[in-house]
Amino acid sequence: MNKIGIIGASGYSGLELLRLLAPRKDIEISFVTSSTYKERKVCEIYPSLASIYPDLKFTGFDAATCNLADLVFVALPHGISMEIIGNIDLNKTKVIDLSGDFRLPADVYEKWYENDHKAKDLIDKAVYGISEFERNKIKDAVLVSNPGCYPTSVILGLTPLLKEEVIETEVIVNSLSGVSGAGRTPSAAAHYCQIENNISAYKVGGVHQHIPEIEIGLLKSSGQKVGVSFTPHLAPMARGIYSTIYVHPKKGIMAKDLHNALEKHYENEIFVTVLPLNSVPQVKSVTGTNFCHLGVALDPRSNVGTIFSCIDNLGKGAAGQAIQNMNLMLDLDEDFGLVSAGLYP
Amino acid sequence: MNKIGIIGASGYSGLELLRLLAPRKDIEISFVTSSTYKERKVCEIYPSLASIYPDLKFTGFDAATCNLADLVFVALPHGISMEIIGNIDLNKTKVIDLSGDFRLPADVYEKWYENDHKAKDLIDKAVYGISEFERNKIKDAVLVSNPGCYPTSVILGLTPLLKEEVIETEVIVNSLSGVSGAGRTPSAAAHYCQIENNISAYKVGGVHQHIPEIEIGLLKSSGQKVGVSFTPHLAPMARGIYSTIYVHPKKGIMAKDLHNALEKHYENEIFVTVLPLNSVPQVKSVTGTNFCHLGVALDPRSNVGTIFSCIDNLGKGAAGQAIQNMNLMLDLDEDFGLVSAGLYP
Amino acid sequence: MNKIGIIGASGYSGLELLRLLAPRKDIEISFVTSSTYKERKVCEIYPSLASIYPDLKFTGFDAATCNLADLVFVALPHGISMEIIGNIDLNKTKVIDLSGDFRLPADVYEKWYENDHKAKDLIDKAVYGISEFERNKIKDAVLVSNPGCYPTSVILGLTPLLKEEVIETEVIVNSLSGVSGAGRTPSAAAHYCQIENNISAYKVGGVHQHIPEIEIGLLKSSGQKVGVSFTPHLAPMARGIYSTIYVHPKKGIMAKDLHNALEKHYENEIFVTVLPLNSVPQVKSVTGTNFCHLGVALDPRSNVGTIFSCIDNLGKGAAGQAIQNMNLMLDLDEDFGLVSAGLYP
Amino acid sequence: MNKIGIIGASGYSGLELLRLLAPRKDIEISFVTSSTYKERKVCEIYPSLASIYPDLKFTGFDAATCNLADLVFVALPHGISMEIIGNIDLNKTKVIDLSGDFRLPADVYEKWYENDHKAKDLIDKAVYGISEFERNKIKDAVLVSNPGCYPTSVILGLTPLLKEEVIETEVIVNSLSGVSGAGRTPSAAAHYCQIENNISAYKVGGVHQHIPEIEIGLLKSSGQKVGVSFTPHLAPMARGIYSTIYVHPKKGIMAKDLHNALEKHYENEIFVTVLPLNSVPQVKSVTGTNFCHLGVALDPRSNVGTIFSCIDNLGKGAAGQAIQNMNLMLDLDEDFGLVSAGLYP
Repeated sequence: MNKIGIIGASGYSGLELLRLLAPRKDIEISFVTSSTYKERKVCEIYPSLASIYPDLKFTGFDAATCNLADLVFVALPHGISMEIIGNIDLNKTKVIDLSGDFRLPADVYEKWYENDHKAKDLIDKAVYGISEFERNKIKDAVLVSNPGCYPTSVILGLTPLLKEEVIETEVIVNSLSGVSGAGRTPSAAAHYCQIENNISAYKVGGVHQHIPEIEIGLLKSSGQKVGVSFTPHLAPMARGIYSTIYVHPKKGIMAKDLHNALEKHYENEIFVTVLPLNSVPQVKSVTGTNFCHLGVALDPRSNVGTIFSCIDNLGKGAAGQAIQNMNLMLDLDEDFGLVSAGLYP
Repeated sequence: MNKIGIIGASGYSGLELLRLLAPRKDIEISFVTSSTYKERKVCEIYPSLASIYPDLKFTGFDAATCNLADLVFVALPHGISMEIIGNIDLNKTKVIDLSGDFRLPADVYEKWYENDHKAKDLIDKAVYGISEFERNKIKDAVLVSNPGCYPTSVILGLTPLLKEEVIETEVIVNSLSGVSGAGRTPSAAAHYCQIENNISAYKVGGVHQHIPEIEIGLLKSSGQKVGVSFTPHLAPMARGIYSTIYVHPKKGIMAKDLHNALEKHYENEIFVTVLPLNSVPQVKSVTGTNFCHLGVALDPRSNVGTIFSCIDNLGKGAAGQAIQNMNLMLDLDEDFGLVSAGLYP
Repeated sequence: MNKIGIIGASGYSGLELLRLLAPRKDIEISFVTSSTYKERKVCEIYPSLASIYPDLKFTGFDAATCNLADLVFVALPHGISMEIIGNIDLNKTKVIDLSGDFRLPADVYEKWYENDHKAKDLIDKAVYGISEFERNKIKDAVLVSNPGCYPTSVILGLTPLLKEEVIETEVIVNSLSGVSGAGRTPSAAAHYCQIENNISAYKVGGVHQHIPEIEIGLLKSSGQKVGVSFTPHLAPMARGIYSTIYVHPKKGIMAKDLHNALEKHYENEIFVTVLPLNSVPQVKSVTGTNFCHLGVALDPRSNVGTIFSCIDNLGKGAAGQAIQNMNLMLDLDEDFGLVSAGLYP
Repeated sequence: MNKIGIIGASGYSGLELLRLLAPRKDIEISFVTSSTYKERKVCEIYPSLASIYPDLKFTGFDAATCNLADLVFVALPHGISMEIIGNIDLNKTKVIDLSGDFRLPADVYEKWYENDHKAKDLIDKAVYGISEFERNKIKDAVLVSNPGCYPTSVILGLTPLLKEEVIETEVIVNSLSGVSGAGRTPSAAAHYCQIENNISAYKVGGVHQHIPEIEIGLLKSSGQKVGVSFTPHLAPMARGIYSTIYVHPKKGIMAKDLHNALEKHYENEIFVTVLPLNSVPQVKSVTGTNFCHLGVALDPRSNVGTIFSCIDNLGKGAAGQAIQNMNLMLDLDEDFGLVSAGLYP
């Protein structure tokens, strides 16, 4: 029985971890922490857990208790995460961090997050955990930095094309996100009346902190230096990332070559599904799951290729991939507890 | 390995059966039929299944093949279901029917469904399958008539109160349903532009065919003859039933007596959760699950009691309860494969 | 040119007043106040006004400036409204108050709002403004207390039936509200992820402050003392009230008698539309408008009648009715600027 | 009093025309035709019109009656529109066609619409009616071809930048549309359960028939030959177009230069609002209106510019612009009856 803790469990990623772990009999939830809801029952905050965890309570963070767990997920906001993880003895307890704190080199982090980095020595220990590309490193890691939702969608969509050198290295990424990506904290931007029947771009002009994560992630996964123009939008969905990625195929490359590159690299991957050429993915196909659905098309008039990449931001974009990584780190079947169909309708 | 077939698998209930059975290793899907999509891949119609059932194809119905399965779900429209089931050898293959064809006595059926009944001899064999109340009969049944979504929500909410004789037997039921309850067939009534930001009652004036099912179901479960006024409404949700049930407590009965009655009857039931007094359930707590969440309040000024009953119409209201019944019929753990938290957010 | 001010203009009711007044050339917006957004452009907060009011700015409240207007709308939260209105010279400036502060007798107010009343002397001056029933008093009023959204829907639905004495005086009201009814302030309860695909009752057990307003309003409009059991629910809509009202017809009363009562009383009312018997209204038919749509049905088995009443909570339930009342108070055509069709699709 | 007819009035564009014309006293609706709903009341099909047009009935099409109107809107599907318009005497009755039948040269039409053109002689008579750019021609026209929704959003967003020669002429357009853009006919693609919480691209690979319309429209409006890569997506909204247009600024061009170009060209346009630099539009700001909101940003790292263009597909993208054109053709104030704020919340 593996003992698992969740630090910062009252946010949506923490909730999704609990939801995904609920049916598992090989896992024991040792503790879930929340500074805001300490001592309160989890199901008071999240009644969706009332039937599964009727008695589970949030506790405060305590490094000693923490080290009784085999592995902890840290689902805290960036900036706070690094401080907490610095207090955990990684020789005793493995850590998967869902924040942005260990995804970038210190200098890049400090520039894009406009925040001092307070645990620089840990950055080198952290494995950037796109499970499909870093399996072996993840198995041996004591600290996994779980990738961001937008980067996961883009890196999975582009890596095979870059590795096969079928596209130029300047790409334009138009991404749509469900509102849960902005977290659970009430705000004018997340108000139902603001989101429903609405679309709006945000952080325009190349300022989103996922831009360097995408570029560095692609360099790691493909060996290629890519220039990314990235524009995120909020869409009226609770969950989901839909990235439409515009690429320029290299000379002589046809639609089927793009498609073949994706198929070749993912034919043995359970969580990445490549749809037939000219088929497009849709968000609800992956809602609640750890799957990534990919589609490809090419406009012969403009010679612009489009890669469509679709994930659940809380699934493959956060808690799902975190559990996939946990399975690797605990030497379990990588897909254990994660094989489920999208919630449609 | 139990062999399972699904007849009429291209509707939402069929899809939900496949979704819920997807992670199970003790089940083999022997066949899924669809007259409309015969020979086509299931995942072409439902891309949410593309990663799980990439090669599964719809077949046509064939009684001989059918009897190679241990159990079949019939998820056909009412009227058609009875004709198909008449062709199945129930000594070889157990059947769970999700239609309304075997839920009522023949004369009541013919009146409310305005349709001749063509398999009257099977009605007596069919066990009306609210799992919590008919466990033993279901275990021995060859034909289970799976209850309707509205009736499940109401019967679970009222049975303990009637058994304990704490309420009068005239009740008013105000129910809201998600759109998937009306099925997958395109219609003006199910058009996105009709449903979003909208509410509308339908089948008003006491004509919905679930009215006799509720009354007869309550008579079976509680021994009491109840008069039901029932008004269904469509709400802008994909899934969910929210029933607000207005009751008149008997003389001297307090709020806590109503609450106690529910708690007493459901304390050992895994799939029925009674919330604290004056807490109300919400749809998303049960989305995608087989749970029923119940709440109770009493207005002391008017002395009207309110029972709130919330299920997923495709979960406890259809495919979830069908699988719970399957587990019983196949002598498996009743909750096997069904313990999952609601998809929130 | 009538000079109009809006105090507390940054909430949804204030916004809706601006939206409805935008096309009018007979009105001059003298000022709009907001303590939160003082000095800021209105269109920074509400970009939906950017093309119409590009330069309008919020100011602070100032009694002297206030009295330069012919009429002011007060769209402040209850409790605050009464304090502000106490500072306005009603001989110079007429006031329409959209809060709950002047709708109830002082003692009833203090009990249900759990708040001291600080302007008791003004309560008697205030006319409770269901326009259809109090036209003449409204024309002469200096202070109109604009009715609440739920009460408007219920009072319009029941008054003719009570006046005609075709129903008993105990009624059950099941109401659904869009989220804008809870205001613009961010909260966990108004978060997109909480509201979408969800339904939940709230303030159950007879504690909503609109209960006495409904009962007193019905007494005023019909002369009958009515006992109301009222249960509000939040539905996934930005706007709209859908009230399903359960009534017991008096002996011998048929469905058509209920329908006739409504038709008779509203045949000359432009803003109340009675649908054919057994037709039901829907929210989107009245979205963005000042209309109330009413439907009637009767279940002959249970002899329970259902009145369906549908309004836009920001329209006939707030700003729309306020402008209808303004038209009356300024001696304009009552329907001026208010005749528009519901925003469908 | 201008007499107006609407041919094909039962679709969403026809409905929106009726909604926008409802408050006008200078217009008489002479007839509304529908082959499907002939003889039925309009408000039976669209209860949102019940309070405004309680008695208006659909008729069949009749060329003679048609010519009693001063102007008719034709809101029929493409292919059918051209046949009907061929029967109208344009010397007696002006026509605004909302279909795609007269927007393209015959050969281009036949290729992209895969349909023979049956009224080629009328194509040259038709003025492509982006009101802002073709005002004078529209005033004198007997036949206006009302632009498509996507093209309107893109042409308004790009024309000033092309005229000022601040961008290269290869552009990438990522557009999102509300579901009403696909029309009122029920389909699996428009089912509520398919659309809600979902996003999907469609007609990928450069095959959407609006591509040549955008390119030809831009050539007309700016004199420049532009290559367009266009990918449309369906979003969970009833209404709205959100186009994110990726452009390459010419050497030395800064963000403010792009912004200045837009401001300069639209400073006197009532229906096109340019937001401050780095501000982005949102759909709900223009819902129900004839406005177009434009935003601009530039990512200095990638040197990719983004133009955000937002309209209501039924407003400026169809019926709104059609009425703006009608006002021009009837020599009325261009903005008459069209100045209204977006329906927010």
